[in-house]
Amino acid sequence: ASSDDTRPSKVQELYVYEINERDRGSPAFLRLSQKPVNSLGDLVPFTNKVYTGDLKKRIGITAGICVLIQNKPEKNGDRYEAIYSFYFGEYGQISVQGPYLTYEDTYLAVTGGSGIFEGVSGQVKLQQLVFPFKLFYTFYLKGIKDLPEELLGDPVDPNPSVEPHPDAKAAHPHAAIANFTD
Amino acid sequence: ASSDDTRPSKVQELYVYEINERDRGSPAFLRLSQKPVNSLGDLVPFTNKVYTGDLKKRIGITAGICVLIQNKPEKNGDRYEAIYSFYFGEYGQISVQGPYLTYEDTYLAVTGGSGIFEGVSGQVKLQQLVFPFKLFYTFYLKGIKDLPEELLGDPVDPNPSVEPHPDAKAAHPHAAIANFTD
Amino acid sequence: ASSDDTRPSKVQELYVYEINERDRGSPAFLRLSQKPVNSLGDLVPFTNKVYTGDLKKRIGITAGICVLIQNKPEKNGDRYEAIYSFYFGEYGQISVQGPYLTYEDTYLAVTGGSGIFEGVSGQVKLQQLVFPFKLFYTFYLKGIKDLPEELLGDPVDPNPSVEPHPDAKAAHPHAAIANFTD
Repeated sequence: ASSDDTRPSKVQELYVYEINERDRGSPAFLRLSQKPVNSLGDLVPFTNKVYTGDLKKRIGITAGICVLIQNKPEKNGDRYEAIYSFYFGEYGQISVQGPYLTYEDTYLAVTGGSGIFEGVSGQVKLQQLVFPFKLFYTFYLKGIKDLPEELLGDPVDPNPSVEPHPDAKAAHPHAAIANFTD
Repeated sequence: ASSDDTRPSKVQELYVYEINERDRGSPAFLRLSQKPVNSLGDLVPFTNKVYTGDLKKRIGITAGICVLIQNKPEKNGDRYEAIYSFYFGEYGQISVQGPYLTYEDTYLAVTGGSGIFEGVSGQVKLQQLVFPFKLFYTFYLKGIKDLPEELLGDPVDPNPSVEPHPDAKAAHPHAAIANFTD
Repeated sequence: ASSDDTRPSKVQELYVYEINERDRGSPAFLRLSQKPVNSLGDLVPFTNKVYTGDLKKRIGITAGICVLIQNKPEKNGDRYEAIYSFYFGEYGQISVQGPYLTYEDTYLAVTGGSGIFEGVSGQVKLQQLVFPFKLFYTFYLKGIKDLPEELLGDPVDPNPSVEPHPDAKAAHPHAAIANFTD
């Protein structure tokens, strides 16, 4: 089979940070349950900024919705079903779905992608650093060609005090991918 | 190619029951259409319990949302677009999307998975036994390793009177998978 | 490997038109943000009609939801995260997720399928012809068997004045696929 005829099956790791810089009016917590505590019926559309794992480049945004499934008083937190995409400018998008627990790390399914992520499968590990403002993701991706170098810098060790490089935060051209999603 | 380099393409069948035991505050019917009959605009977040097809073990939960698409007076029912996941404790999760018709069986797409279901593809048959409280699913799964034995017991023939084994209902350790999702 | 054991990796193109004929009560714009301009928090369940690319046959419907992500005053439009399925009668369904921008064409991820689309992967190009009533889609599909002839007619060149053949609009048997979705 030629290379066009095969789905690459090696696993590629991709690291990104998702950061809520409180400048996008997100999240929109819709208390549709009309109950005093978080409950099934509440919906939370959201959109945050996304940076490379080395925090040197602005990539794009996340966009999607969290469905509140259950309040867990014993964990002092909530279970959500999260359905969203990560946008990588002209490179395309990765869509994911799965558990978002406010009190522990989880794995979500990669459900598909577009652009360089067309035909992708795999999963993604979600690590919460500062609830709900700072998260670190490790994607395990299959079925796509080698990822571009600029997405593959050494990730900054995830911890609550990480910050994007100021140039990336300002999305200066040398500190953002081409036509980053905004 | 070594076995690590290939996506298994055989189809594995997996049977589960989804049961609403009326103890999770589910579903949350959000009548956002503000119309007297079910209409586009209504949203229905939900979460139910999931058992193995042999009804001997508690597995976990479902979690997601149904989008009401159209009331079908001639069918005395509704079409929903359903977007949800099945949780299998430490084994991981399967995400699905597709038609939920209150008046007939349907097939939905498997959109992805995590854990042992990482990279999964396929479809799932939804059979309604008691609306909207008892459903039987047959998953047709590709791209994953052999499923664990404890998920593969002979399914109880689906009918409206099926009940989980009392030990499974009580989630006793011998009647639940390890760290079942709750 | 026998043909049953392999995932076809060739790309098949499939063209469809999605048309809002204003007879399905769609879209349902839920202004849950409670803000005067479109904002994060607004949700838009929708369902439209789907025709073959040659506009000679009624295929079915779309069904799903758009999550408003951000109003773009400089574009005089909005970014949505779209999560929906295309229904093809007895042939099954394709589910997609990704960006819907009211002011430019986009690519979305194909997240899965059922029926003849079981196990599908790929992406889809969305072209808006008349906002928000007429759209043209080019699917790039992998992992499935050869598509049926009746879905593969030469597409009508997408432009704002295209209309389905009157027989297709009326869903006459010769101008609709068998058991088209309605």
